Parts: sequence; C-alpha cells; structure tokens
Amino acid sequence: MKFDEQYSGNVFIKSHPNYEESQAVIYGMPMDWTVSYRPGSRFGPARIREVSIGLEEYSPYLDRELDEVKYFDAGDIPLPFGNPYKSIDLIEEYIDSLLKDGKFPLGMGGEHLVSWPVMKAVAKKYDDLAIIHFDAHTDLRTDYEGEELSHSTPIRKIAEHIGPKNVYSFGIRSGMKEEFQWAKENGMHISKFEVLEPLKEILPTLAGRNVYVTIDIDVLDPAHAPGTGTVDAGGITSRELLASIHAIAGSEVNVVGADLVEVAPVYDHSEQTANTASKMLREMLLGFVK
Amino acid sequence: MKFDEQYSGNVFIKSHPNYEESQAVIYGMPMDWTVSYRPGSRFGPARIREVSIGLEEYSPYLDRELDEVKYFDAGDIPLPFGNPYKSIDLIEEYIDSLLKDGKFPLGMGGEHLVSWPVMKAVAKKYDDLAIIHFDAHTDLRTDYEGEELSHSTPIRKIAEHIGPKNVYSFGIRSGMKEEFQWAKENGMHISKFEVLEPLKEILPTLAGRNVYVTIDIDVLDPAHAPGTGTVDAGGITSRELLASIHAIAGSEVNVVGADLVEVAPVYDHSEQTANTASKMLREMLLGFVK
Amino acid sequence: MKFDEQYSGNVFIKSHPNYEESQAVIYGMPMDWTVSYRPGSRFGPARIREVSIGLEEYSPYLDRELDEVKYFDAGDIPLPFGNPYKSIDLIEEYIDSLLKDGKFPLGMGGEHLVSWPVMKAVAKKYDDLAIIHFDAHTDLRTDYEGEELSHSTPIRKIAEHIGPKNVYSFGIRSGMKEEFQWAKENGMHISKFEVLEPLKEILPTLAGRNVYVTIDIDVLDPAHAPGTGTVDAGGITSRELLASIHAIAGSEVNVVGADLVEVAPVYDHSEQTANTASKMLREMLLGFVK
Amino acid sequence: MKFDEQYSGNVFIKSHPNYEESQAVIYGMPMDWTVSYRPGSRFGPARIREVSIGLEEYSPYLDRELDEVKYFDAGDIPLPFGNPYKSIDLIEEYIDSLLKDGKFPLGMGGEHLVSWPVMKAVAKKYDDLAIIHFDAHTDLRTDYEGEELSHSTPIRKIAEHIGPKNVYSFGIRSGMKEEFQWAKENGMHISKFEVLEPLKEILPTLAGRNVYVTIDIDVLDPAHAPGTGTVDAGGITSRELLASIHAIAGSEVNVVGADLVEVAPVYDHSEQTANTASKMLREMLLGFVK
Amino acid sequence: MKFDEQYSGNVFIKSHPNYEESQAVIYGMPMDWTVSYRPGSRFGPARIREVSIGLEEYSPYLDRELDEVKYFDAGDIPLPFGNPYKSIDLIEEYIDSLLKDGKFPLGMGGEHLVSWPVMKAVAKKYDDLAIIHFDAHTDLRTDYEGEELSHSTPIRKIAEHIGPKNVYSFGIRSGMKEEFQWAKENGMHISKFEVLEPLKEILPTLAGRNVYVTIDIDVLDPAHAPGTGTVDAGGITSRELLASIHAIAGSEVNVVGADLVEVAPVYDHSEQTANTASKMLREMLLGFVK
Amino acid sequence: MKFDEQYSGNVFIKSHPNYEESQAVIYGMPMDWTVSYRPGSRFGPARIREVSIGLEEYSPYLDRELDEVKYFDAGDIPLPFGNPYKSIDLIEEYIDSLLKDGKFPLGMGGEHLVSWPVMKAVAKKYDDLAIIHFDAHTDLRTDYEGEELSHSTPIRKIAEHIGPKNVYSFGIRSGMKEEFQWAKENGMHISKFEVLEPLKEILPTLAGRNVYVTIDIDVLDPAHAPGTGTVDAGGITSRELLASIHAIAGSEVNVVGADLVEVAPVYDHSEQTANTASKMLREMLLGFVK
Repeated sequence: MKFDEQYSGNVFIKSHPNYEESQAVIYGMPMDWTVSYRPGSRFGPARIREVSIGLEEYSPYLDRELDEVKYFDAGDIPLPFGNPYKSIDLIEEYIDSLLKDGKFPLGMGGEHLVSWPVMKAVAKKYDDLAIIHFDAHTDLRTDYEGEELSHSTPIRKIAEHIGPKNVYSFGIRSGMKEEFQWAKENGMHISKFEVLEPLKEILPTLAGRNVYVTIDIDVLDPAHAPGTGTVDAGGITSRELLASIHAIAGSEVNVVGADLVEVAPVYDHSEQTANTASKMLREMLLGFVK
Repeated sequence: MKFDEQYSGNVFIKSHPNYEESQAVIYGMPMDWTVSYRPGSRFGPARIREVSIGLEEYSPYLDRELDEVKYFDAGDIPLPFGNPYKSIDLIEEYIDSLLKDGKFPLGMGGEHLVSWPVMKAVAKKYDDLAIIHFDAHTDLRTDYEGEELSHSTPIRKIAEHIGPKNVYSFGIRSGMKEEFQWAKENGMHISKFEVLEPLKEILPTLAGRNVYVTIDIDVLDPAHAPGTGTVDAGGITSRELLASIHAIAGSEVNVVGADLVEVAPVYDHSEQTANTASKMLREMLLGFVK
Repeated sequence: MKFDEQYSGNVFIKSHPNYEESQAVIYGMPMDWTVSYRPGSRFGPARIREVSIGLEEYSPYLDRELDEVKYFDAGDIPLPFGNPYKSIDLIEEYIDSLLKDGKFPLGMGGEHLVSWPVMKAVAKKYDDLAIIHFDAHTDLRTDYEGEELSHSTPIRKIAEHIGPKNVYSFGIRSGMKEEFQWAKENGMHISKFEVLEPLKEILPTLAGRNVYVTIDIDVLDPAHAPGTGTVDAGGITSRELLASIHAIAGSEVNVVGADLVEVAPVYDHSEQTANTASKMLREMLLGFVK
Repeated sequence: MKFDEQYSGNVFIKSHPNYEESQAVIYGMPMDWTVSYRPGSRFGPARIREVSIGLEEYSPYLDRELDEVKYFDAGDIPLPFGNPYKSIDLIEEYIDSLLKDGKFPLGMGGEHLVSWPVMKAVAKKYDDLAIIHFDAHTDLRTDYEGEELSHSTPIRKIAEHIGPKNVYSFGIRSGMKEEFQWAKENGMHISKFEVLEPLKEILPTLAGRNVYVTIDIDVLDPAHAPGTGTVDAGGITSRELLASIHAIAGSEVNVVGADLVEVAPVYDHSEQTANTASKMLREMLLGFVK
Repeated sequence: MKFDEQYSGNVFIKSHPNYEESQAVIYGMPMDWTVSYRPGSRFGPARIREVSIGLEEYSPYLDRELDEVKYFDAGDIPLPFGNPYKSIDLIEEYIDSLLKDGKFPLGMGGEHLVSWPVMKAVAKKYDDLAIIHFDAHTDLRTDYEGEELSHSTPIRKIAEHIGPKNVYSFGIRSGMKEEFQWAKENGMHISKFEVLEPLKEILPTLAGRNVYVTIDIDVLDPAHAPGTGTVDAGGITSRELLASIHAIAGSEVNVVGADLVEVAPVYDHSEQTANTASKMLREMLLGFVK
Repeated sequence: MKFDEQYSGNVFIKSHPNYEESQAVIYGMPMDWTVSYRPGSRFGPARIREVSIGLEEYSPYLDRELDEVKYFDAGDIPLPFGNPYKSIDLIEEYIDSLLKDGKFPLGMGGEHLVSWPVMKAVAKKYDDLAIIHFDAHTDLRTDYEGEELSHSTPIRKIAEHIGPKNVYSFGIRSGMKEEFQWAKENGMHISKFEVLEPLKEILPTLAGRNVYVTIDIDVLDPAHAPGTGTVDAGGITSRELLASIHAIAGSEVNVVGADLVEVAPVYDHSEQTANTASKMLREMLLGFVK
C-alpha cells in the first residue's frame, strides 16, 4: 500500500497514471443544461468510472486486454453551469490540445451537444473526416425554440460544417419530419431503425477514411438503457451495439476519436446503463485505439 | 401567453381542444380494484399523458404527424373505487355516447377488465366486429375465485358475447390449462408466444372487417414493460409491438376502436413503460384513425 | 359526466375554472438550468398538482376549507430551456400582469432563482415590501462562478433591490462565510438553524407591513424533503414549517404573494416531498389569501 | 437441520409453532381494495414478517424478551379480491374464533377498514370496550362516494357501534370538517396533531377498562413512514409512537387486542416503514400481552 | 380456514407439505459473502418464493401443471455469515441427505459458489455426471485474490473434480484471458455469447448421461435480469433461456439436479428478476422432474 | 485546466494533495462481509466522497472553513473480500503508520467491525484512551453465531482491550439482554435512547483525556439515515447528532481520531444518508482537528 500518494480511486479501470505515455485520453463532459426533457447526464461520467471497477480487463470479443492500450483518465472538464457557449468553447479548446499531443480522444457525456465542439476540433485536424453516429434521435434541428446550442442540434452543426455527405446516422427512430427531409435532400445518410446491417454495408465505402464515432446511449432500447434523458421504445439491443462497435473495429476505417453520451444515473436504478456504458467504452478502447 | 384560460397541461400531447371537431377521443379508465396480484394501474393514464410531452410529433414509421389527426383528450372517466359493477356500467355508457357522436375511441387503462364494456359497446354498433388482442395472459377465465368481473375474464366475456371465432389473441404465454382448452374447443384463435408472424397471416383473412384492437402492455417482455401489475418473462420486444401496430395500420382491416391497458407507474422506475405506452398510442392514433 | 369539455385533470385540487373570478392564481415556473448540483425541479409543479388529489379540502389547523378561497391554476409558464435571462424576464412580465389584475400570486418552482423576478415585480407594487425567507441556504452570492443569474443569488438580488434590512431569512444552515458576513454588515436578518421561535419574535415588528413569503423546501430536513436538489442535514420538521406558516397567517402582516420552490420529483421516491409541498400550498392558500 | 419438516421461514420472528399453547395470535389482513388514493397495503403483512428477522429479541424499553410471550403466526386471512363485503365477514368470523379460544388478537393490515370487523368482534366479548386510535386521518366518514365500506369509515362504524364516547383518537391531522364536527357533537375524543401528552392524560381515566388499540402507521410523519398509501406531512416521530405504546403498556388499562395497518411496501424503498412496523409489533407483543 | 396449523405462507407456490412424498426438494442457499462487486443475493430465495404467488400453475410451453410434480420447499439452509468454509460444508452435507432420500435437488442462490458443494455431492452419486452451465462469466478462476472459495471459482472447482471435458458452459461473455485459455487447453466446452444454438448441438452428444444444470441468472442480459450482482451487457433474452430449458427438457439427457443463482432483490426494482427466476424454476420443475 | 495531471476527482471535497503536509488523513474501509442482515456498506466511502461535492466549505456552526484544516484523502484501503481476519490486520497496520506519521485518522466504513483495529491501534499510542460511541446497537457481543470477528462485536473487543470503564456509548436502542447486563456489571457507560443530554454530562468528566469518537450512522433514526444496513426506529435526528459533534468539539477532551461507519448506498435512494454523512465528516474535520 502506498497511501501517501494522492488517491486516484474513481478513474476508469486500469487507466494509466501518466499523460505523456498514454495513447488515448478518456475525459468527461458533465453538461446537461440545454436538455429539454429530463436532465441528469452531468453525473454520467462519474458513475461510469465508478462502476467500471466491475469490468473484466479482457474482452473475449476482441481477444485483447486493457493492458495492451495505454489510456489516461483526465477527469471531467470543469464546465460552467447553465452557460452552453462557454462550455462549448472550453471543450473545443481541450480537444485541440489533446489532438496536438497526438492523443486519441475518448469522451463521456453529458448531453449530446458536447460532441459538437469535439467533432469540430477533430475536423480541423482531419480534412477527410467522416462521422459515424448511433442515436435514437436525428439531432438535426437548426435550433430548439430559437436556441442553436441545444441537445437537438449537434449533428446538424457538424453536418453543415463538414458536409452532410460525410455524416452517417444509424438507428434513428425519432425526429421532426423536416429533419429527415433535410438529411435526404442534402445527401446525408440516415438508417432508420436499423444499425448493424446498414453499417456493414457502409463501412467498406469508408475504407481508409478518418472517422469519428459518436454514440448516444439512447440508440439502445429503453430495456437496455433506461438511465438516459429521452427514452424511446423500439431501439436496438446491447448485443447489436457491441457487434456494431466490433464491426467498426474490424473494418478498414481509421477511428480518430469517439464518444459515448447521455447516460443519466438518476434514472438508472440498478446502474444497468452505467455498467453497459462502461463495457462499451472498454470495447471502444480495445477496438479503436490501435 | 394566455394565462387567463383554464390550464390544460396534462393532456396527451397535441390534443385538440374541441370535442366536436375531433375524429378520435382519448380517455382514461383509472380502475385496478379486481387485480389479484399487484395493483396500481389506476394511475397509468395520468402518467402516460405526463410523459407524452417527450414524444416527437412525427412518426418516421408511418411518415405522418400528429397534426394530421384531430383527437380530444377527455380525461379520466370518474370511476367509483372498489365497485367494478358501477365502473363497468359507467364505461359502457360513455363509449355508447362516443360512438353515437362518431368518435374513434382510444382508451387507456387501468386493468384489462375495463376493455370489456368498451368492446361490448363497440359490438353494439358493428355486428361483424372482430377483436385483435395482444397480451401475455389468456384472460379467458369465467371467474376469479367466484367473481366474474375480474381482470382475468374480459376476453372470455367478449368471446362469449360476439362468438369465440371472432377473437384473435397474440403473444399469450400464461393461463390455466382450461382456458387454452376452451379457446381450442370453441374455435378462438390463440397464437402462443408469437405475435408478428401469425398476425401477418391472419390480417388478410380479416380484410374489410371492423376490428377493435386491445393491447395489454404486458404482452411486452418485462425488460420492455417492467411497470405493470403482472410481469411475465418471455415476451416480445417493443420493436415487435410497434411492427404489429404498423402491420394492422397497413392492412385492409377497418380499426374502429382501440385501447392500451395495465401500465402501473409505481413499478415503472424510470418511466420507461409509460414512455413506451405513449409512443404506442401515438402510432395507434396515426395508424388507426384515418 | 361532461366529457365534451376540455379535460383539466392535472390542476391543483379544487382550482376555480375562471381567472377573472379568482382571488389568487397558482402557477408553475419549471426552470432548473442554473442549478450547480442536482437538477430536476423543472418537473416539481406538475408532480405537486398531481398528488394534490390526495389532499383533504379542509384544514383542521386553520378551520377553513378550500371552497372558501377562489384560486385559478394557470399552469406552468413556458420557459426557454437553458436561457435564464429570457426566463427571468418572462416570469417578471407574467407577475406584473397578475398584480395588475389584483391577483394574489402563489408560485411553484423550479429552482429558487425563479423567486427573484417575482419578488422584483411585487416590489414594484408595494414599496414597503418585506421578504420572509425559509431556506437551508443563504442564497446571498453575488454570482456563481461568474454568473449572476444562479440559484445561489436570488436573495442577494432582492436584498440589494429593496434593502437588506427588509429581508428576513430563517433556518439557514449553509452558505459561504462571506454571505453571512455581508448579511451581518448590511443589517439583513438571518436566523441560523432556527425558524419558528425567531419568526414569532420578528412577526410583531412587521405588523401592518406588506410581506412576500418564499419557501425553499430544503429548509426542511432531508428526512422530511428528500426530493430536492441540494439536501442538507440538520433542518426543521414539516410540523415546524406548518407551524411557521400558521404563525404568519395568524399575525398582523399582510401577505401579498408567496412561493414554494425546489421540489425535484426524481429524487422523491414515494412522492413524499411533493405530497408535503401540496399540503404546505393548501395551508398557504387558506392562511395567506384573505 | 431438520429439513424434512414443513418450512416456516416467513413468520414473524420467534413465533411459536403451536396454536393451542400460544397466548397471542398474529395474523395478516391483506386487503386494499377500497383505497381511494394509493393501493398496495395488501403486501404489508408479508413484508413486515420478512424484515422482522432483523429485530433483536430483547426490548431495552420494556426489559422483556420475545421468549417471554408465546404467539402463533397464523399467516394471512385469505380475502377475496375486490369484495369488501365478504372480506369483512371473513375477518369477523376469524376473530370470533380467536377470541373464543382465548387468544390475544394482533392484526396486521391491509387498509384500515380491516380493523372494523376486528373491533366489532372484540366488542361482542367486552361490553365496556374502549378504542385507542392512532392515525393521521379521522376515518369518520359515513361513506366514501356512496360506499360505506371504505378505508375512510372504520372509526365511524365502531364509534356508532360502541358509542362515540368510548373512542379516543390521537394524532389526527386530516379529515373533513363534518367529521371533526360529528366527533365533537357526539362526545368522541379527538386529539388533533398531538399524541403522547393527551394520551398520558386520558389513560388514567381508562384504568381497569378493556381497550383495543388500532394504529394506522400514517400517524407517523412521512419521514418516518413513507411506505403507506396516504402520506400526510406534520406527523409524529417513531420515538413518540414507541413512547405511546409504552405509556399504554405501563398504564392500568387492559389491552385485549391490537392492530397496525396501512404499511404499503411498494412505496417503502429501503423497507424503512416495514422495519419500523415490525419493531412496533414487537413492543406491542411485549407490552400488551401479559 | 385452518388457522391453527402452522403458517406456511412464503413457500414456493404449490409446494407439497410432506417431505417423504415429494419427488423434488426446493431449497435456498442464502450466501453472498465472497462476492467481489455487489452483494445482496442472500435475499434471493425469499423474494423468489414471495413473487411465485403471481405464477400460473400451468405451463403452456410444456403443457404440464405444477400438480403433476410433487416438490417440498425446505426453506433456506441456515448458513454462517462470512464463513464460506462452513457454508460449503453445510450445503454438501444437506445435498448428500437429499440424494440419499432419492430427492431431485432444486437449489436457489445466493452467489454462484453455492453450486460447488451441490455439484460435488451430486458427482458422488453419479459418476458419469456432466454439467450444463449457463452464465455470463467463466467462473473458472483458481482463486480470487488468493481465496479459492470465491464466487469466481465454482466452475473451475467442479471441472477439476469431474474433468473439464464433462463441463459445458453457454453464454459466456466475461472472464480473464487465462480462464478461456485453460478451458480450451483442457477440453472444456465454452460457447461464447451464444446459448440455444450450441446447446441444441451438444445435447444429442449427452443423450443418456446424468446431467446437472446450473443457471446463473446473469446469463440473461441486464435488460432481462437487472437484479443481480454483476450485470454485463450483451446477454440473452428470457425467451432464449426458456427455450434452452425446454430444449434440455425435451432431450434425452437425464437431469439429476439443478439450480438457479445470483438473484439480488435490492437491485431488482420492480421485482422483474425475481418474477423471471420464479418462472424459470417452474419450467425446471415441470421439465426436469419426470 | 491541467489535464495532464493524474485525475483526482472523487476525493473528499477540498482534500489536500500532499500527505506529508496534511494534519489529518481521511480513508475508506470498504468491508461488509460479516454483516448478518443487509450488506452494502462497502460502497459507502466512495459515495460519501462523490456527494461531498455538494457541501459548502464553510461551517456556520463552527465558523470555520475547510481551508483551515489540511487533510489528505488516502482512498480506500484495499481489503480482501470475505476475509475479515486479513482485513482487520491490514487496517491496524495502516493506522499504525498514520499514527507514527502524526496524522489524525478519520475513517469511513464499511461495517462497524472496521473500527476495532483502528481503536486498537490508537490505544497503543494513547494509554489513557476513552471511546465515545454513537450507535443504535450495543455491538457488545462476544461473538455472532460463533464468529468473534463480526459487526456485532467491535465495542466489546475494545471495551475488553482498554477496560469497559473507558467506553461511553450513546443512543443505544437495540441489543441482547446479556449485552446490557455485561455493560452494567463491568462499569461501561451506556445511555439508552438518549445522546446529547447525557453526553453533555459526561464530557466534563473526560476533560484532558485522549478520546476516539466512533459514529455508527444508524444512531440516527431511519428517517434521517435510511441508507444503512440495519435500520431501527426511534433514533435521534441529524440536528442532535450535529449538536453532539459540536459539543465534543467545544469540550476539553482531546480528540485523537474518529470514524463514521455503516453508510450503505444501495438503500439510500436519494443519497440522503451519504449527503448527511459527508456533512458530519466536514464538521468532524473542522471540530476535531485543531
């Protein structure tokens, strides 16, 4: 026991203590203030770290162990309550520094809006960037009741930023009619309801591309992820999401960053969703960070 | 803001304020007093309305928006606690008046017994009526411990009333041996365990018929609907129930009324079941009310 | 049954259907976006209305029945998610109109910041206004991490607006050292920890004054109000809060408005806090609206 | 281990296996079908037995151990769902047989209506019977929406049966104006809000009388008993209820039967209320059964 | 009513009161003290019994009723808290006596370690014994942090005892790399992720063999069994587990004992997992006890 | 932001990063394996740290801020699951090293047995040591079903170690008759039921003595601390426990170490108990560490 060193209990399991030596950095973005329905995802990253202690370090899916990847847990980015503008800027600035240091960014939300500044930062580095997006919701609004920084807008923002043709959404089962129309008219890919089959068709077309993967946990059915802000029946199983992550890991795309967002512990009565999220993150670390 | 008008917050989302102009009427039947296991569905309709605020108004399944249907939320029928006889009569009387006014009745339970007087009223108007019934349970008892008005008897009562050959049950995975035998001997259709495939086979045989659809939410697996009185493992997914509603909507049957029953909020810890029920009701409104 | 009238189920029990004829107006302020710890009070007003159905209409404390007061439930003020500035303005504007119409405003939060625009509006009408404030927290910060519109600042704002000597806080058991010092140096009254005894001493000194009463439900001990954002051990009992309301009701002060804030249903597992809040509101209606 | 004997796991702790040799009989009355607000007390007796395993067998309050009293756990009386009339008759019949056998009846509810047939049976045996009643609610209605067998009427029924002057209610904080008036006009004792002090004043006046004690767990504040159908703020603490039981135990009244009702496990998230009820029952056994 | 007989309320539904006349014995093993993550399965057996009251007595899957099998509920084996060594010995001793009396042992856990002494006892009687094991976890560690009696070791222990070639694990999705390697190198069967299909392939090869079936409820996905110590995303549905039990029941293997372990009520918010477990046990009784 | 330093998010609020410079050390003892009733306190320390973020840094009770005390959060002592013997030894060894370094030990449980090795270590350093013990339970058993290392024995062990006359228990309301007798016969102080008044009488007699303070959170009534293993009605309020801590802080005793044990998050539905515990620990830091 070395109790005279600073305690580092609540980090994602097997995190590496040294930033410089790490290939990837895992970090939280504890923001939920633009949420229109049920807030609470600000506590998601902390709970995911806490339950990660229950994970095995070996993936029988990928036949790889956490020891084979070096990742640093940077904690949560301190975001100013109720101020989405400053929050967005702080996140972008942080990702810029990670990318400059050559780290693979692996983010934990927080509401989905946090992915916008991350993707924007990543797009600065990789000009051929494509987005693979798993979600129940389109997130393609231009604004929510007049507010453009909303949990309903991040995919619209990145689609306009890098071009809708470079964005691939899967599992979508909720949105406004106008959002689906905009996607269609602008050449953005949306797989309604389905995930794994269309993903397997798309992946070969992205071979060699730099890809950012963003997972809204509500792409899972509420049976598999009750602990999230906006539950929506008719989603996929956790088996299918695992298989989708593995499909990407086994493809020829080059994953350059990823996140998993919208875990809300207060709705997650037996920590089922947080446990599932922590397993997905393990598979993302083992499958995406080469 | 027009705050000098009577508040009407907790109505099903996008309800039309005017009864006369509405095609359909949505109403609650807050009764759970004949339940043998876990009571609580009396609060189902109120919670379903409350969470309906989280619904998108557009269905990407049916490519239709709630604005395209006019429905009025009539609130809950005031039922006398602990008196099933009066309750049944009040419900029948109310449905009679709805049907006389040409409205499509869309009911929310409450325990499944509430469907009996509704179906009886509908059968008065349509003499070729067929029933499509989704449930984990047969509900074919003649009585429960001597009591004929029980949550275990509504399908038996309507089957005897309109003839067992006109009743089609799907997803049944629980019941007494005698109930299954009675159904078999009397030509009533029961699809054990399965829903979507047998439904797709039956629907063409009902083309042109007037049909009432009654959904006990426990046809879903407990993973998809924990918030109900009698959970029973081995049910279908919410995806399959959605697909079944869409199969009916896309068929040649003429749906003349419908209900969704047995949501019990006190067992529904993250409001998963209520959210799912509200989505099913949206699809029923968009798919059944032409 | 008159089911062809618009349903108005989820109103505070016994609300009067007509705005013009009502003496008081009860309204919700569903805002929680500046909260630093646990959000969720946006759903407080709806849940308080829902459980108010369990209330008796008679108060054995005051020997008065709800029929003796006419109050209108105006529903929730529609506030823009994540935008405290607009929210504050909308609330103030609404209270202005209520006061112009001679109504007694009885508000339900939402986070405590919602009380600031209400009190500001009331202070425009009554230039001798005093504030009676029940809370666990001082709420006297000038800002929270640079943001002046925060759930930590409403009492500071009204104190600076009408003069600290006109603000009386009771039950305070949490705050920064600087907040307590500011209160002391500026002649604002703070009763640390205690409520009923100091209140009884202060009330005679306020005889004849116009008074606004603001209750943060967390003045109660967490045992009595677990369903709130920031629980803090060492609070008062619900008996003492009832007695405090009755002390004001029986005093010579002229209550001109009141609110009860910070009920957060997601932390309120058996709806204990919402039930308690609804009883407090009944007593406030019966005790304050003459 | 004697595993070839019938399992008797879920009995109240330290129950005696033999009916004939027992002084007291503990039994459940799992009925909740006349409840107007939140049902669920039907599962109360089973949960109270289950958690009784956590009790110490010694009372440091009474300096007595459970071994010093012989009591038999008779299980739950099988009551017909939804039929209060038959239920009431079955209970009365059972108590008649207990009393004939000279047993002390100690009942567990279920809703409060179950106490009515018990008290009626006890009154047949003891013609000087007095009732000591702890409750938040008067329970003095003649009927509830036309139904005389309701959880709102049991005290009215026994008061009319044995004379209102023989009924002493304590802790009452909720009821209709008419109920309080009826009590006052008919000489029935009601202590509003308070329990221990008025009880200590009344007990000497009952010296030598045969007394039945009925405790509705909601006499406790919701902080102390969240797991009940109708929570009502402003109640007493569990310390005060313990002291009240001990005051009766130490007085000169002759307790001839008792019950504790309205524990509803589904609202009792950490089994706090069931644990408290089981401790109260231990003290009643040790204090009342001489 | 025969209330003078010993109460036997909380037994598994339809248990036979007489040990001698029974074919099977159902018993609980309330132990969870070697659990590394979340304890609580010690209360599993009691809760499973309690909710079994909600079961129908007829299985439409097997067309058989509980009356057709005689089983005795022996209650929980009294195990010494915190002492795995004595616990293990007590369990083995008890199973020895059951087997000597010719009873079919049907156990309820408790943590999975309890299966080790049961399987050991069964192996003494049947020297051709094979194990069919459903689980999310390998449970093949030699020790957990130096402790060989751990919930991570029971399958390793029985595999070493009867030979790894006689052990068949299904649904495994978590474990250390070394565990999977050991299984592979030693000829033990592990079906990773899948259950029903590989089971159907294996069963014919076991025709005529004596087989013990051990089910860790966490073989189910957390959506289907949230109430367990170590939830792990990506599991099977309750439909698939039912079908697997039925596949064994319909095969030519001779089931000589079985158990279902790791139900932890405190994580099982609507008793979904306990209800599912009780249904699985009904199917095991009807399918395995000939 | 300095994200390249090791994350130390989940430490007790305002912990000092340097061991050497700290006066006090706060540490967790995540052990619950000898618990006879409800396990779960192993997760107590982590949750208390997590919710400590909601604390103000200033105590209006003591007029002192956390900045005025330097304390290091050492994290949880890694204890071997299910092995109380090794656990006890590891704890004692750790406390020995803390005391050698001149640190004030402030422990978080875990079950109460963890206090035994702490007190034993402290007694080695201070030969005039007295114990002040707040608890619902005597904890004076010699063994629990033959096991001397049990959560029922720590006070007996320290009492025998330093002499029963040096142990002062307060608030005790549960135990075996023999435990109370042993205390009485051996001159150990037990205040049954009461805490603050007897404490105020005892403190002057301990002036100048070195004192260790051990708080079992269940000394609080279940209303104030539902999140613990063994709830027991009739306890004190959190106000009284705060006042007791302040009474010690303001007395002439020399507190040389302290702990707070038995917080079990799984029973703590709105984190009420963890929040309360974190406030008590703040007051202990500010009041005891001079």
